[in-house]
Amino acid sequence: MLVGGKPYRTAWWEKGSVKLIEQNLLPFSFRIASYKTFRETAAAITNMTVRGAPAIGATAGFGMAQAVLSGKRKEGARIIKATRPTAVDLFHAVDRVAAADDALEEAQLIADENAEACERIGELGEKLCGARVLTHCNAGWLACVDWGTALAPIYARKRKGKRVFVYVDETRPRSQGARLTAWELRNDGVSHAIIADNAAAYFMKRGEIDCVFVGADRIAANGDFANKIGTLEKAICAKEFGIPFYVCAPETTIDRKCKNGGHIKIEERNEDEVLFQRGLCDDGKIRRVRVCSPLSRARNPAFDVTPAKLVTAYVTERGVFRSAHFK
Amino acid sequence: MLVGGKPYRTAWWEKGSVKLIEQNLLPFSFRIASYKTFRETAAAITNMTVRGAPAIGATAGFGMAQAVLSGKRKEGARIIKATRPTAVDLFHAVDRVAAADDALEEAQLIADENAEACERIGELGEKLCGARVLTHCNAGWLACVDWGTALAPIYARKRKGKRVFVYVDETRPRSQGARLTAWELRNDGVSHAIIADNAAAYFMKRGEIDCVFVGADRIAANGDFANKIGTLEKAICAKEFGIPFYVCAPETTIDRKCKNGGHIKIEERNEDEVLFQRGLCDDGKIRRVRVCSPLSRARNPAFDVTPAKLVTAYVTERGVFRSAHFK
Repeated sequence: MLVGGKPYRTAWWEKGSVKLIEQNLLPFSFRIASYKTFRETAAAITNMTVRGAPAIGATAGFGMAQAVLSGKRKEGARIIKATRPTAVDLFHAVDRVAAADDALEEAQLIADENAEACERIGELGEKLCGARVLTHCNAGWLACVDWGTALAPIYARKRKGKRVFVYVDETRPRSQGARLTAWELRNDGVSHAIIADNAAAYFMKRGEIDCVFVGADRIAANGDFANKIGTLEKAICAKEFGIPFYVCAPETTIDRKCKNGGHIKIEERNEDEVLFQRGLCDDGKIRRVRVCSPLSRARNPAFDVTPAKLVTAYVTERGVFRSAHFK
Repeated sequence: MLVGGKPYRTAWWEKGSVKLIEQNLLPFSFRIASYKTFRETAAAITNMTVRGAPAIGATAGFGMAQAVLSGKRKEGARIIKATRPTAVDLFHAVDRVAAADDALEEAQLIADENAEACERIGELGEKLCGARVLTHCNAGWLACVDWGTALAPIYARKRKGKRVFVYVDETRPRSQGARLTAWELRNDGVSHAIIADNAAAYFMKRGEIDCVFVGADRIAANGDFANKIGTLEKAICAKEFGIPFYVCAPETTIDRKCKNGGHIKIEERNEDEVLFQRGLCDDGKIRRVRVCSPLSRARNPAFDVTPAKLVTAYVTERGVFRSAHFK
């Protein structure tokens, strides 16, 4: 996708180095980081310079190629797998590259496959996409290699010359909507407005939202899915107002061994994400401010599980699925 | 209610001056402002040193008493009414004090009546209140004269020695939950956790919330009511999970001339409330930080209207009403 008119992916290979968009600095500055060794690339995964399961997978693949090319296949696999121990895409990427005849070719293939899957999700999802879309969190190209999942249909719609406006949930506590989705949309010239997470039902009730598109972190065999905290609320509200609710994800997100959402464990993250907000001060510095009553505590579940009954359809690169049974 | 062990109201009269808790400074510092003239008091209403319809009403009453006692009845009424042109409680208070034989006595009566109404709401609401309560925004004593509306049943429950834990919605964009409700609860020693507005349905689904208590800015004759943006989402989610949803408000909030929620006009406020957050930096300074992608815009409806069908019961000082027809 374009940034300042120039095409980018989130992660790519360049003369032996792994290149990443430094996502920790977005949206306030756009910089490319360069990692010459698999150890440096692994550290970039750990410190969340890159985020989003497919983007992490592609980065891990390229990092593993660095390890293989420097004769450190075993050590590389061990170290890269330890960076984000719950990331399934990362494990698959490391194993694929480690087992390949041509490590770099395989790493590039992983990245290309994800970009193609997302482009296809965009084509399929575009047919379901209305002019006024609500999205939650960031399921855009920054979370993938290119195109994105939930945002891919929006980009596809725009490329067809159709009108599209996106309501972007801020997505507290980490505000990926306000920071990353809004940044992506602006770079692609897609009209949008950031809204407080509280405001989605208001716009739905007024008939200002035609459809909801979200991504997924993990989809169970019965169609229940885990995604960023707040996805469940949006799904419930969409049902209340009869608005179609679509889940976009590559096939790799479907966990067929997971019977239903009851088996998905939800991580509660550090309360500081709720108690504080980071942002850009008038003096150009990034600062952290406390946004709540001092001494009060917070609870911070990072994800929630939305039941399949609230989903209108799932869009993967293989098709649009209205049934909730993935076998 | 107690602050640091000492009893306070939000607004009171002391030797000719109107005293207010400076709510703009909460929760980071607790200061009492003092206003010697009705003009000063009116300015304090305008700049939101005091907020919440009943608290504004009481302040306006005391300010009007200052005007009458300084021989400026007409001028005082005109200036105080111009401070917040949509505040019904403010208009009523000014008119009552202007027409009274003893202006100060009447102003005091207005404040006392609201405090008593809220205390009564607490007694009645306590009977409906479970051990684990969700609340949205700030409908506590800071918004009233004392006790609060939605928080009054919680305070009453605590005073009965029963266990109570409050999930406090942050309430973006202005974060009145994280800032004011959490501050109130901490001062009264009520156990609580601040949660991102996205997380309420997660806790409901897990069975961690027994009931929802919210306040109201305006209740139509059919029971539809306007309240802080996000109230509608919480009501929809409560219905989805079969959790009782209670609206607490003094009788003065019921607008019997307003037939239904369709007649309530919703204010869209400045987008900067969404695009920025104010808070306390590590260096002790209050700063504003941009929390979103620069150049992106926001939409910022301040209130939403929740339909009567989503309300389990209304609690006013006159009783608990399960029917939605106020005549």
